[in-house]
Amino acid sequence: MTQILECVPNFSEGRSPEKIERILQPFRGQKGVKLLDCQRDADHNRSVVTVVGEPEALKTAVLAAMEAAIAVIDMRAHKGQHPRMGAVDVVPFIPVKGVSMPEAIELSRQVADAAARRFNLPIFLYEESATATHRRNLADIRKGQFEGMPEKIKKPEWKPDFGPVGMHPSAGVTAVGARMPLVAYNVNLGTSDLEIANDIARKIRHLSGGLRYCKALGIELKDRGIVQVSINMTDYTKTALYRVFELIRIEARRWGVPVVGSEIVGLVPMAALIDTAAYYLQLENFKTEQVLESRIYE
Amino acid sequence: MTQILECVPNFSEGRSPEKIERILQPFRGQKGVKLLDCQRDADHNRSVVTVVGEPEALKTAVLAAMEAAIAVIDMRAHKGQHPRMGAVDVVPFIPVKGVSMPEAIELSRQVADAAARRFNLPIFLYEESATATHRRNLADIRKGQFEGMPEKIKKPEWKPDFGPVGMHPSAGVTAVGARMPLVAYNVNLGTSDLEIANDIARKIRHLSGGLRYCKALGIELKDRGIVQVSINMTDYTKTALYRVFELIRIEARRWGVPVVGSEIVGLVPMAALIDTAAYYLQLENFKTEQVLESRIYE
Repeated sequence: MTQILECVPNFSEGRSPEKIERILQPFRGQKGVKLLDCQRDADHNRSVVTVVGEPEALKTAVLAAMEAAIAVIDMRAHKGQHPRMGAVDVVPFIPVKGVSMPEAIELSRQVADAAARRFNLPIFLYEESATATHRRNLADIRKGQFEGMPEKIKKPEWKPDFGPVGMHPSAGVTAVGARMPLVAYNVNLGTSDLEIANDIARKIRHLSGGLRYCKALGIELKDRGIVQVSINMTDYTKTALYRVFELIRIEARRWGVPVVGSEIVGLVPMAALIDTAAYYLQLENFKTEQVLESRIYE
Repeated sequence: MTQILECVPNFSEGRSPEKIERILQPFRGQKGVKLLDCQRDADHNRSVVTVVGEPEALKTAVLAAMEAAIAVIDMRAHKGQHPRMGAVDVVPFIPVKGVSMPEAIELSRQVADAAARRFNLPIFLYEESATATHRRNLADIRKGQFEGMPEKIKKPEWKPDFGPVGMHPSAGVTAVGARMPLVAYNVNLGTSDLEIANDIARKIRHLSGGLRYCKALGIELKDRGIVQVSINMTDYTKTALYRVFELIRIEARRWGVPVVGSEIVGLVPMAALIDTAAYYLQLENFKTEQVLESRIYE
């Protein structure tokens, strides 16, 4: 595979194994597509699928999975704790290898266009694919949820990018877009004082004056008697992992608090860690192609 | 590929493109085998091939390449600057993924046994596969070279591990074994004083009291006006990259000399860099399976 994208579609069904299996079917045994994970949550009544593949194969498989989800999910009967607006709630495409962000955006537009036509489904483009600033953030698009959408999409500023200006009766509305991979990263502090973690979080996050692609908040780890700065890195290629880590260390110093460890939750692109190793070793002219594994699989 | 080995066979032919191509042929277009590199050197009259593959497929391909080399190379007419003792001079197998060192040793023994029978070739097992301490080091085995081998292998302590106790007339003798991947790593110092690089090299290398799997020497980079500690890491899983780097930094401090950079020459296993990132970020419970690429290709 010379070009690889990741797709993390969220489906509004987290309880029926049969229905979820039908949605996953298009991702199984397809050449050029690999299903990596499916996290179903009964309370949220939602499944988060992680799949990777070559652009064309992935597009075909995602559209087939959307078709299955629209066939088996009726949003009029849907209950769950997680905010949602459609049977296929959100479909993000993430460039992984040999794919630029403009190419990922173009692919997301193709999927949105095809899905709108085939399923008569209203679709919003979001994140990097958004056609207006107020449509970048998924939370802003989803506000009002399934129940509030019939009114919302009549407003000119919320006219869907593709599909009808009216709800799909059972499948609602879908957001499709391209975004960078998220890295969930937590840094543990040697104190039980939550205020210190919150103070540091405020200083490093974009929202309150910190690093551009960094979201953060303080969290208590009660069983360990410590606190944590819990971080979402929204673009590790521009806001590097080591820069966040070192900035936390600098801020912790004023409290006389040690950094006792950190953790990466879930998956992380290899480049984020290689970048970190290269910084600390002061590596000159290092290329990803020097990593043996990248040569084996290229 | 769930199990991957690397093989870096050295052939005593570095001039004739036709002969080299014939030797490489068994590595091309074979399922389960991938040719990564072939560095031919006319002065050395030698080619160093890098190939990876699944155990059985790699074994078959390596034996076929040995057969081709023995057919096209006549050591009686061989001249070159690099020490050599056979048409197929040395065949190291390196575990890369899902293969233990004992498994790599067993595979090297199978290849040695098969080659000895098929080509009537005397073979020494070396490095991790060696059957005696004095046979571990390739330089010790090769001492005397092709011209001195007829006498050398008559001595009881140099009886070949497989094959006849006598030279192959045109192909000489071959060493086969298993070893860890080598990482060629250099650290640059902000001084032109070679004695400082040599002093630090002496302190960090195994030979003179330093780290177990570290070879080092001082080198001048005249065009940059600086010096370098040039390192060969013979087992990065036991002597970590970051430990060598930090030890050099500590020793440089006593000279008031800064570390201005470092470089990795050629290929490096992903795990060596992830290990480094994990150290500096103080990562807790990180698993290689969390690297997105390792999941895609597993």
